Amino acid sequence: MQNHTEEHRTITPRNEDFSRWYLDVIARADLMDYAPVKGCIVFKPDGYAIWEYIQQTLDALLKKTGHRNAYFPLFIPERFFHKEKAHVEGFDPELPWVTEAGGERLEERLAVRPTSETMIGHMFARWITSHRDLPLLINQWANVVRWEKRTLPFLRTSEFLWQEGHTAHENEHDAREETERMLALYASFVEEHLAIPTIAGQKTESEKFAGAVDTYSIEAMMQDGRAVQAGTSHYMGTNFAKAFEIMYSDRNNTMQYVHTTSWGVSTRLIGAMIMVHSDDRGLVLPPLLAPTQAVIVPIGPASQRAIVHDEAMRAYEACTNALIRVRIDDRTDVSPGWKFCHYELRGVPIRIEIGPRDVQAQQAVLVSRITGEKRIVSRDGLAEHVTQMLASELRQLRARAAQRMHDNTKTIETLDAWAKEEKPRGFAVAGWCGSRACESTVKTRTGATSRNIPHRHMDAPKTCLVCGAPSVHTVIFARAY
Amino acid sequence: MQNHTEEHRTITPRNEDFSRWYLDVIARADLMDYAPVKGCIVFKPDGYAIWEYIQQTLDALLKKTGHRNAYFPLFIPERFFHKEKAHVEGFDPELPWVTEAGGERLEERLAVRPTSETMIGHMFARWITSHRDLPLLINQWANVVRWEKRTLPFLRTSEFLWQEGHTAHENEHDAREETERMLALYASFVEEHLAIPTIAGQKTESEKFAGAVDTYSIEAMMQDGRAVQAGTSHYMGTNFAKAFEIMYSDRNNTMQYVHTTSWGVSTRLIGAMIMVHSDDRGLVLPPLLAPTQAVIVPIGPASQRAIVHDEAMRAYEACTNALIRVRIDDRTDVSPGWKFCHYELRGVPIRIEIGPRDVQAQQAVLVSRITGEKRIVSRDGLAEHVTQMLASELRQLRARAAQRMHDNTKTIETLDAWAKEEKPRGFAVAGWCGSRACESTVKTRTGATSRNIPHRHMDAPKTCLVCGAPSVHTVIFARAY
Repeated sequence: MQNHTEEHRTITPRNEDFSRWYLDVIARADLMDYAPVKGCIVFKPDGYAIWEYIQQTLDALLKKTGHRNAYFPLFIPERFFHKEKAHVEGFDPELPWVTEAGGERLEERLAVRPTSETMIGHMFARWITSHRDLPLLINQWANVVRWEKRTLPFLRTSEFLWQEGHTAHENEHDAREETERMLALYASFVEEHLAIPTIAGQKTESEKFAGAVDTYSIEAMMQDGRAVQAGTSHYMGTNFAKAFEIMYSDRNNTMQYVHTTSWGVSTRLIGAMIMVHSDDRGLVLPPLLAPTQAVIVPIGPASQRAIVHDEAMRAYEACTNALIRVRIDDRTDVSPGWKFCHYELRGVPIRIEIGPRDVQAQQAVLVSRITGEKRIVSRDGLAEHVTQMLASELRQLRARAAQRMHDNTKTIETLDAWAKEEKPRGFAVAGWCGSRACESTVKTRTGATSRNIPHRHMDAPKTCLVCGAPSVHTVIFARAY
Repeated sequence: MQNHTEEHRTITPRNEDFSRWYLDVIARADLMDYAPVKGCIVFKPDGYAIWEYIQQTLDALLKKTGHRNAYFPLFIPERFFHKEKAHVEGFDPELPWVTEAGGERLEERLAVRPTSETMIGHMFARWITSHRDLPLLINQWANVVRWEKRTLPFLRTSEFLWQEGHTAHENEHDAREETERMLALYASFVEEHLAIPTIAGQKTESEKFAGAVDTYSIEAMMQDGRAVQAGTSHYMGTNFAKAFEIMYSDRNNTMQYVHTTSWGVSTRLIGAMIMVHSDDRGLVLPPLLAPTQAVIVPIGPASQRAIVHDEAMRAYEACTNALIRVRIDDRTDVSPGWKFCHYELRGVPIRIEIGPRDVQAQQAVLVSRITGEKRIVSRDGLAEHVTQMLASELRQLRARAAQRMHDNTKTIETLDAWAKEEKPRGFAVAGWCGSRACESTVKTRTGATSRNIPHRHMDAPKTCLVCGAPSVHTVIFARAY
């Protein structure tokens, strides 16, 4: 789908222009294309395959924790939004409206869902009558639309793909437990499979979800020091239960409102993964999510092609039997060097080179996409060596990302000190008095927003970074995507 | 999610009122609920799980035949529809339009996709430049919307879920081969996994897809003799290639239009599966797609509960190890009889009863949902017996459906003879002169439409059933959902 000369155009180095680097990487890796609709992208096969692996892995975790998938309508009647005041205020500016259908003007406008609390709230009210129906643990994989002014492929698109979990519980305790359980599940999923360490914590009032009592997030750090909110989990209290009359008769036959939660991760994870791990040579994929984990490139003159090909096939079968997602590129119209570059750009974690001398010596050469390390391994232990190298790459990606986050997280005493830096970057750990005004001052002066109030203890000054009053919360501030 | 008294309400018998029977079955089996948006349904977990199994199975088949998944935008600019004349005429009456978004009136209306030929055609034109880019074999799993006047859960809903394959080829031969290959793949998938035999054939001019050169379908017969189009495959010729300028330079460096195909199956397969297999006791699920394939129901007095439970756990593990999707229902607040009915309604293919005497005799009782057959089997061979019974149930479902289709397919000489029947039902095999007028007369007089011109030979009169002129095609006529 790309021609060969285009293929080798250079990628803008990260330290020269991070935004251009990002766009170059996803273009060269053939992950997406711009769609002829404002702010929308097309997920090309190599990009969509990453999402499929994220889906499969996460879906299994959600099912293991007792959640069941369902599917709710794309369209939400306008009146539903007006039932929860904060919710409509938050989402109204971003909604696309269907006003005509089937050749007629609709009596009531239909919003294209930006999220499904209202629709699911309406259905939960029909399904829940007794405490025996609780907890109700539902998940949906779906497309959603938010009409965004500024978009960026994967990280912020008008239409995106996600999962949204929606649960209903008997009381606050159970619902809060679920909210935290799902946040923790996201954090471990993102760290384990995407090799992205995050900071889990609570959003401030001004940053929370429209309609939530409390919002929690996991925040990841990109290579330029900016944050990406990688997942959110919300405790809704009885806000949506009251708006949609979701009630149950408790063990004493008294009618009670349920307490609900919702939580989601989206295709923006793909963008975060790229910004955290990729380099100036192109895409880097965490091995567990790489659609192709190893590529075999046969090498050598045409006269040796047959014996090399046999050996490559043997390696292919050994890897496949070991459940490694492997492919052979035995095209003869492009050179091995071209292929090396091709798969580097696409982030295939391991290249397996096999030439005539390797056949003779019963060996193969493994090259790590991440470290560039070359390892000569015996034919017999090939699959095992590949598996080991994949595991080692994953560990290195995680360690590198964790180190970067550590190095670029610093305690700051005052906004003045931080704002004086040429380009305030990374995560700033600060004391905060809790006032919206101070939070807003930080944003105005640095472009940074409060990311969250971290769950884990972090050393921070005892005074607000803006006003100097006693600190109420330790907050992470950062510029964010 | 349902209370216990509601559970046991009777189902209207099929021969009394087939439509009510269908709605009763899906309600009792808890597969769906009506949504507060015209013509839309909610896929509840038990209903959605069936779709997930269809997706997984079919997705693997599509990947094995070289297709790759991608994702294209939900919204399609209005001007795209006007590029292919037949396409816009066919779909315009069913389109929902987004006219406002982000608080502003849009300059150009956006249709919510009813199918994606136009959007994908636009993208293909960007991606294809050379014969080396062909064939391009893309599939998309997505939601689509068609504003339908008359809707029926699963079978015809305003929003539905489907996969749509879109491919581009160098020439007519390759594209037609793909069109037929995918039709055959659908036919074998539907027969093997859904246990539904179908008749594959070509649609007449008046029934073909808007914008296609030729449309092919597989047609299934419901228990009331009506047809359901279970899958379609279209050869588009160069219609969309010309509309969207999808061109490639061939081996002689001459620019050529590609030839495209598209093909799809949707959540209506769920409806067809129910209408073909279920009975007056509720849902019947083909074992390969049943989310729960066997349910273990422990039986006996409280005093024996512990030893029965141990044995049930042993059976559970044996089945799980044999990759049978099994669950135990060890609730004590409902009776075994209640549970029997509960799982019958939900179509679980096998019930495994274990009571104190079974523990003593080291045995279990298997009960087939489909035939009612009871089989006492030894504890040691349990999983193997369950697997065998599942396979035997699948064969019986297929055979039963095939027999029914055979019994209700008859050759008719003249429309007069057929129309005289009180309720023309089943498939009528007839000669047809090829004129639209005669086809239309059949519809007016009987409500039946031409389903397709079958690929396989079927004996039919040599004259048109309406006008008596020489027959050009053998056609299947039937009333359809």
